[in-house]
Amino acid sequence: MTAEFELIKKYFSDLDLASPQCVLGVGDDCAIISGPEPGQHLAVSTDTLNAGVHFPADAKGEWVASRALRTNISDLAAMGATAHAFTLALSVPSVDEQWMRSFAHGLEATAREYALPLVGGDTTSGPLSLTITVIGCVAAKHALRRDGAKLGDGIYVDGSLGDGAAALTLIERDELHEGSYLHKRFYSPTVHAKLSQALCGRAHAAIDVSDGLLADLSHILIASKLGAEIHTDSLPVSPEAKLIAGDREVARSWALSGGDDYRLCFTMPDELVSSPALSGFDLHRIGQVNDTGELQLLDSKGRLMAAPLEKGYQHFSNQKGFVA
Amino acid sequence: MTAEFELIKKYFSDLDLASPQCVLGVGDDCAIISGPEPGQHLAVSTDTLNAGVHFPADAKGEWVASRALRTNISDLAAMGATAHAFTLALSVPSVDEQWMRSFAHGLEATAREYALPLVGGDTTSGPLSLTITVIGCVAAKHALRRDGAKLGDGIYVDGSLGDGAAALTLIERDELHEGSYLHKRFYSPTVHAKLSQALCGRAHAAIDVSDGLLADLSHILIASKLGAEIHTDSLPVSPEAKLIAGDREVARSWALSGGDDYRLCFTMPDELVSSPALSGFDLHRIGQVNDTGELQLLDSKGRLMAAPLEKGYQHFSNQKGFVA
Repeated sequence: MTAEFELIKKYFSDLDLASPQCVLGVGDDCAIISGPEPGQHLAVSTDTLNAGVHFPADAKGEWVASRALRTNISDLAAMGATAHAFTLALSVPSVDEQWMRSFAHGLEATAREYALPLVGGDTTSGPLSLTITVIGCVAAKHALRRDGAKLGDGIYVDGSLGDGAAALTLIERDELHEGSYLHKRFYSPTVHAKLSQALCGRAHAAIDVSDGLLADLSHILIASKLGAEIHTDSLPVSPEAKLIAGDREVARSWALSGGDDYRLCFTMPDELVSSPALSGFDLHRIGQVNDTGELQLLDSKGRLMAAPLEKGYQHFSNQKGFVA
Repeated sequence: MTAEFELIKKYFSDLDLASPQCVLGVGDDCAIISGPEPGQHLAVSTDTLNAGVHFPADAKGEWVASRALRTNISDLAAMGATAHAFTLALSVPSVDEQWMRSFAHGLEATAREYALPLVGGDTTSGPLSLTITVIGCVAAKHALRRDGAKLGDGIYVDGSLGDGAAALTLIERDELHEGSYLHKRFYSPTVHAKLSQALCGRAHAAIDVSDGLLADLSHILIASKLGAEIHTDSLPVSPEAKLIAGDREVARSWALSGGDDYRLCFTMPDELVSSPALSGFDLHRIGQVNDTGELQLLDSKGRLMAAPLEKGYQHFSNQKGFVA
């Protein structure tokens, strides 16, 4: 396709990063990339971000690009897959050169950070929307699935929870300032690709926290046919999120049910957490897999809290509704 | 992601087709699929269709699904790649159960026809839009690229040209009736996957005709640094398109510059066209690759026609503008 091709070529021409896996980059009917190594499978995920739904319509292009690509890379990491290639479908209402330059800049910076080449693109006229499809490679035997949690596993997250909800609160107030911790957490969440690799063969199950801890951990527990207890006092909440929350209960609610955190949540035998491969990461043990078949919240004294669990999960689900 | 996951599960749960290449289907952070066979690469392409831009906003779901998936499969065929897997990102303004059922029905029928499993999905709230990413497998040495055309190659297409333009004319008049030839050509273009495979190792270059013959053939010629002559009297135009065109010049213009035909256009030594592997296809020799560096149109007596070539191409490009 002609005009789109020229546009993509103009802004995204360097985005194959001259990667060895790119046999033929953007510009033919298809890109051609190498397959995975022997003993590996492909991991594939796709996500759409719509302006006004998943990010503010007036967000800078570089922020949008960073967030879109990182949230997709987060899916790869949650699977134990290494980044191999991605495609981008971009709809824009008009060609705003400044926005496109900013977008391309953010996309390139993020792609380089994760050594992830762009191998296909489509640019169309339409309401501002991006769909990214990521392709990764994963050891056939060590993919981090949702259904592998085992009784007694510790439940871990690799950083603070609730930052996404805090950032959204500031966005609603038009007070999320560029350069701030929460701005970075929302638009440039760090995906710990090395941690993901270290978890392969160690963690029994993993997921990325995109819809809120309770919703996402529920996926693991349902798929694994197990329950869990969460020690709510152990939930890591950043000082910045605490400040915005103002109240301990609100902060806890954000950590449990807020979305957009893009942390890895995984279950693993506790004795493996001291493995040298896992050192240097900000890991927090927040609970344990049990056989109750429920997701139980415990307070600081280990008492079962009045079940906001299902409610939290349902509430969030309803709140986000079809958007997800 | 929760709500979307439930929705996708509801409508698209059977769409992995129980394919052997699907190790783990939709429902985890990523799908896991097998890699290509040894000696093969991956071919990847992505395309977006927006309501009101690429298809009428009131088109039935099954038509939209069929067209979206086939136009993507057409990109695989134009590369000589076999279908391996696809992902779907669907934005809908609301959950219209009837439309979704129709869409899922059309998607499944097309996916089964081409043995192409759905391995990832995202469903979001937004203006009606679909992005499909297809992944294929292609013999490393025989990919049908754009840059391989050779001096003296015959130029072939695998069926009528101009049907897309005729269908668009009827859509504008609200006269494109379900069940008609042109309706089928627009919403269910046939991709000749077997022909594509037979072209591997025989054709020197290929492309699918999506933006119009002149625009797309130009891509081959520019990439191959060659020119061509087109025998305009040899352009295959269907009786249905001729009827709508009403006029010979209009029909020729549609065949040359109309888009949305999704035919394979390829260049090949003429002696190979009699190969048994190519028998049974509706192949038309429409011209020849030359060293003029131009795309020349010849009339019925072999005379160079007054250069509508660049104009036709440019006109089409401008008309479709950024949309592509």
